[in-house]
Amino acid sequence: MVSDVMQACKRQRSTYTHTRESFMDVYNILREELMKDPVVQSHPSHAKEWFQEVLDYNVPGGKLNRGMAVYDVLAAIKGAEALAEADVLQANALGWCIEWLQAFFLVADDIMDGSITRRGQPCWYKQEKVGMIACNDYILLECCIFKIIKQHMAGHPGYLKVMELFHEVTYQTAHGQLLDLTTAPQGRVDLSKYTLDTYMRIVTYKTAYYSFYLPVACGMVLAGITDPQAYATAEDILLDMGRYFQIQDDYLDCYGDPEVIGKIGTDIEDNKCSWLICTALQHASQEQQDIIKAHYGASDPASVAHIKELYEKLDLEAKFKAYEAQSYATLSQRIAEQTAMPRLVFTSLLDKIYKRCK
Amino acid sequence: MVSDVMQACKRQRSTYTHTRESFMDVYNILREELMKDPVVQSHPSHAKEWFQEVLDYNVPGGKLNRGMAVYDVLAAIKGAEALAEADVLQANALGWCIEWLQAFFLVADDIMDGSITRRGQPCWYKQEKVGMIACNDYILLECCIFKIIKQHMAGHPGYLKVMELFHEVTYQTAHGQLLDLTTAPQGRVDLSKYTLDTYMRIVTYKTAYYSFYLPVACGMVLAGITDPQAYATAEDILLDMGRYFQIQDDYLDCYGDPEVIGKIGTDIEDNKCSWLICTALQHASQEQQDIIKAHYGASDPASVAHIKELYEKLDLEAKFKAYEAQSYATLSQRIAEQTAMPRLVFTSLLDKIYKRCK
Repeated sequence: MVSDVMQACKRQRSTYTHTRESFMDVYNILREELMKDPVVQSHPSHAKEWFQEVLDYNVPGGKLNRGMAVYDVLAAIKGAEALAEADVLQANALGWCIEWLQAFFLVADDIMDGSITRRGQPCWYKQEKVGMIACNDYILLECCIFKIIKQHMAGHPGYLKVMELFHEVTYQTAHGQLLDLTTAPQGRVDLSKYTLDTYMRIVTYKTAYYSFYLPVACGMVLAGITDPQAYATAEDILLDMGRYFQIQDDYLDCYGDPEVIGKIGTDIEDNKCSWLICTALQHASQEQQDIIKAHYGASDPASVAHIKELYEKLDLEAKFKAYEAQSYATLSQRIAEQTAMPRLVFTSLLDKIYKRCK
Repeated sequence: MVSDVMQACKRQRSTYTHTRESFMDVYNILREELMKDPVVQSHPSHAKEWFQEVLDYNVPGGKLNRGMAVYDVLAAIKGAEALAEADVLQANALGWCIEWLQAFFLVADDIMDGSITRRGQPCWYKQEKVGMIACNDYILLECCIFKIIKQHMAGHPGYLKVMELFHEVTYQTAHGQLLDLTTAPQGRVDLSKYTLDTYMRIVTYKTAYYSFYLPVACGMVLAGITDPQAYATAEDILLDMGRYFQIQDDYLDCYGDPEVIGKIGTDIEDNKCSWLICTALQHASQEQQDIIKAHYGASDPASVAHIKELYEKLDLEAKFKAYEAQSYATLSQRIAEQTAMPRLVFTSLLDKIYKRCK
């Protein structure tokens, strides 16, 4: 009887407003659920507290754009007014799964890159008490994804599809990482591997799938879309958008205002396989290639200046602007032409990133 | 037409003999399938070769007992003569998923423990070219599990159950690892945490679930068993068996013949939270506790001798023999009393480990 009332209540139309705060409320619900799991509950306090800190330190501190997009997509397809409280919770739970996935990969990335800080605090593995224990902590972070999916999706017609989606995207992201790590191994860079083709593959797998395709695909599953063609169309557009996003990132690392982007770019010093260096290598004369070989990846300011001067000679800023305009035009056209979903699903994402300065 | 013939062929009764060699044949099939995946195929050769080496170096080199047990369980339930070639392949594919799961955890464990060798070769991360890239490689190893499950189980009525099983067991194993790492952090051991209760929890989650429950549960799913009570009964018996197995391991580390077990035990020097030290602490006088505090975890031979002398005074060999006899008796009785499955499912496992010397 009581549970009937609760059910009815849950089916009520939502008066939900989607903000960072309301999304964070769902984090707190999920965190409570994870802490209440019998395995965690029966841990001695030192293990229980460790697990809680792994979550709180690594999961919620990002921009949350990816996670919050799941609700936006669902609302764009079904109309916000048609969503019940339970639908909203489900969308935000899946949104948090994407944030958990990102936390899992970032903890691992920081160990591999030997990074010092992340999101304005020391990297998790850099904490004195943590160190290599972080290798198990990111496994735990990944495990949470499937705990949350089971808790909030079991019995839903899209349960299996969502699990397969997270498996597939994890696989793609790890393969993007593999390609990145073997293309630009620390201290042993072979510039002949820095082609635009390899660059595009790295970016597609390492970033575009989980950052752009995954949130939209999650929203589509919740909206009840099952047509494989709709997913293929979305994938096509969103991977292009993801590549554009990462290329902007590489551009801003060199040409962005450090005050605005919140960091001083070091891609040149770090020998990164970025869009700028791959494009430069494609257009460089033999002499210019020699300059790159001599100075790319060196941390002294003179070397960095040589590379930036070369970028200027090759007019990379103009090349980026041309790419950006072309990319925006193509994306807009494909969004307008597709009939798989409301345009808003795509335009709301594209508008957030087009000509961004940070 | 041709595929009808192939189907008929696959449904033929199997003339299969289950050996290490025939199980390895399935490894080669799975490896080919993974290498043929479009993401891998489209990699440049340096990434493709790396991925293949990650698999070949880390997956097949173990004892293979866990993986081979899946077929044994299925055959014990259904009768080997009732199995078609396709059933055998499915059982061995799931068996290999357990070996992949183990490889994934061992690569991570070795990084965390700072180990040097594994299975008679340098640990993967210890290879000069690998290092911390291993952090991504074990993510890739885990991803393979769900690739294989999808390839060989999609459409099977137990597909979802198998996926949930691997999620659950990965979660349990990672929580066992968490408990172990926070109970015995390197260089900062607090012996008050070394209780038999915590020891049993570590062993249950870190070893028993994936080594004993998982192979049997996989076989049960393939045999079409869906009754939750049957899984609960199996879990109960198999976790007990898994704890017994690990306690033997700890016993052999100190009392086994190095020639036979293939290594010189160093649990005392390594400050390990083993059954012997937890049992010793439970029975030690204040004076004996002080000896443990002074000498456990020290690598000089005199300290090790002090601890071994104390083990002798506390009659730990006899305590182990008593535990072993009791454990065997209880297990045998519960196996005889249960009606969920043929006894052979359990006895074939128990007979392999009872009074083992290595």
